[in-house]
Amino acid sequence: MNQAIAVVGLGNAGLPLAAVIADRGIQVVGVDVNEKRCQLINEGRNPIPQEEGLGDLIKRHGGRKLLATPRFEDASDCRTFIIIVPLFVDQSFNPDFGIMESAVRSVGRVLKKGDLVVLETTVPPGTTEALVQSWLAESSGLDSSDFHLAYSPERIMTGYSISRLREFPKVIGGRDEESGFLAHQVYSSFISNLHLVSSTRVAELIKVMEGCYRDVNIALANELFKIAQDLDVNFLEARQNANHQYCHIHLPSTGVGGHCIPVYPWFLIKEMEKREGFDNCRLLRTARELNDDMARYWAEKILLACLHVDRPLSLVRICIKGITFREGVKEFYHSRNLVLAKILRDKGLDVYVCDPLLSPEETEQKGFRYLSPEEADVVFDPFAISFEKPGDAG
Amino acid sequence: MNQAIAVVGLGNAGLPLAAVIADRGIQVVGVDVNEKRCQLINEGRNPIPQEEGLGDLIKRHGGRKLLATPRFEDASDCRTFIIIVPLFVDQSFNPDFGIMESAVRSVGRVLKKGDLVVLETTVPPGTTEALVQSWLAESSGLDSSDFHLAYSPERIMTGYSISRLREFPKVIGGRDEESGFLAHQVYSSFISNLHLVSSTRVAELIKVMEGCYRDVNIALANELFKIAQDLDVNFLEARQNANHQYCHIHLPSTGVGGHCIPVYPWFLIKEMEKREGFDNCRLLRTARELNDDMARYWAEKILLACLHVDRPLSLVRICIKGITFREGVKEFYHSRNLVLAKILRDKGLDVYVCDPLLSPEETEQKGFRYLSPEEADVVFDPFAISFEKPGDAG
Repeated sequence: MNQAIAVVGLGNAGLPLAAVIADRGIQVVGVDVNEKRCQLINEGRNPIPQEEGLGDLIKRHGGRKLLATPRFEDASDCRTFIIIVPLFVDQSFNPDFGIMESAVRSVGRVLKKGDLVVLETTVPPGTTEALVQSWLAESSGLDSSDFHLAYSPERIMTGYSISRLREFPKVIGGRDEESGFLAHQVYSSFISNLHLVSSTRVAELIKVMEGCYRDVNIALANELFKIAQDLDVNFLEARQNANHQYCHIHLPSTGVGGHCIPVYPWFLIKEMEKREGFDNCRLLRTARELNDDMARYWAEKILLACLHVDRPLSLVRICIKGITFREGVKEFYHSRNLVLAKILRDKGLDVYVCDPLLSPEETEQKGFRYLSPEEADVVFDPFAISFEKPGDAG
Repeated sequence: MNQAIAVVGLGNAGLPLAAVIADRGIQVVGVDVNEKRCQLINEGRNPIPQEEGLGDLIKRHGGRKLLATPRFEDASDCRTFIIIVPLFVDQSFNPDFGIMESAVRSVGRVLKKGDLVVLETTVPPGTTEALVQSWLAESSGLDSSDFHLAYSPERIMTGYSISRLREFPKVIGGRDEESGFLAHQVYSSFISNLHLVSSTRVAELIKVMEGCYRDVNIALANELFKIAQDLDVNFLEARQNANHQYCHIHLPSTGVGGHCIPVYPWFLIKEMEKREGFDNCRLLRTARELNDDMARYWAEKILLACLHVDRPLSLVRICIKGITFREGVKEFYHSRNLVLAKILRDKGLDVYVCDPLLSPEETEQKGFRYLSPEEADVVFDPFAISFEKPGDAG
């Protein structure tokens, strides 16, 4: 068996994985539609500088053990295909499988009898065996029993992906016993903390459940924060002393953004709704609504902070210190901080934005005017969920 | 200052505390309305045998360093009064302060200028400074500034109370700086892992928040369990592999019983409702409803298990293997297993109970007929939430 492994998708999750495999001495063919990114990688240059340790690996292996290419044919000699492409959702949080289907079908066109395909993208449980398998069979012309199929969810975390891949437990599940066994064998050559589970479906649910745990616990933190505010208790002090080995109360926030946590619960909610099990996802739905509603909650707090400013409300200059979805990450997908700024603007308030990651020009491209916090009357930091001005408003 | 400390309430929480204090060489006057219990303790006999390590302490200190008495006057020389009596709730989950008010007022009648009172019972945030303080002032005739007042929630766990008191972090908060300082000083003489927080209110909320964390996370486990069942995935396998240092998915169950976890969220829900903050407790309320509804969920599963029995439904003998609220604890308060058995009985099914902690006679006193599992057609174990019979029904 040719040892070369194809990694399809060299994004924030795929590239660290490809680099870690290459670093184990295994030849990797990394396939990505982005030609420029491929070129960069082959020149040993790291397109994700914030990822600790990745630069070294790309420098060492880029263009050698890790060969990036936009052409699937370049991977046709590989016997293992790892698919790790993004899955977006539409406005109603239904997954849009466009990119994934295209990638899977492209893999299918170079797939040979006996090959192994492993999906790593987080998906609604059932996706691997229902959709991916049929796309592969159709595009390859093979019978589905002629190739092996498994699922192993990526568990990276932006900035810590390399150490996560090397130390964090990783699960893998096969479509059948043989697929599971083979996938476990292949992955063992580059993942040390690997756990074989009984099916692709279990492996899929595991990843989605983790997201649900996070979302529900952030919702709980937000609810307890609101209650503590009403009771005039410092939530962070209470939280710090409530937490111990059996209690893990999360941090409150303006909500939950990004492509992961706010999306995964919908995978289960939508599936339950499809089956008319509306009552089976009440907590997940409530948590989602509660987290999304925090933008409205903070908009009101900001409005009330204007009480402390001695000028007409229409002239109070409000500055939001960040509209990215998370501190330090220049992404806006489902950003509740962006929504917060929009809510205030839509109410007719004099809103400005000062995001540490955006230039004044970029701020304007996002539809907001830039203002230095020094010049504002009310300054709200959504990452610290606290007011910098006026001092007593928080 | 006389070093003797009064512990008011020698129940499951009070007695271990009293014993631990006595074991540090401090004279303890334990006050409890139950004369027989006092006599037992003074004879060195342990009324809570399931509490590990307690027997030794009672044997060593009962009637000596730990003097139990039903008379508050016997504690009149003490300068510190720790109140740790039960707080029950009514049918609508409103706290019934009867026992606590009576105990607090009795303490008030022997209270002297400069004395310290510490409440340990879990209460709705605000109780210490609103209710306890005024009861003490009224009954003592003292100005409230003439005595010190603090709150330190018990964090015991049935069976592990002694080790919890000796190792687990414990928080304490005073009504004012002086009360906090004094209470911290006194408690430091018998609690090693002690943390002073800024107010009684914070300390009160800390304990209630822990209960809310548990309740919401059990609700999440129950919801994910139901979804996993629908998806035909083994939840326990998924849970085991989903959990790691950042993910703590709990165990599913037939609901949550006992005096603690199902009660504490109501302390916050009721308080928010009083303030018309209905939207501030949606998650807590949803979790409560979801957990309470698990009895109905399992009743349906048991009903469907009868599909596998080859006899008319009315003749299928159903055996529930446990109606206590928790395995190994002979208590029935808010027991969802008792509710589960009642739901099935009320539907007209032929329901029996075989509880490992109840004799056939005691089972009948609880309104159920006893049947050995061997003689039943459908056997459900609510503690393992699984069917023993018929084998394939789970």
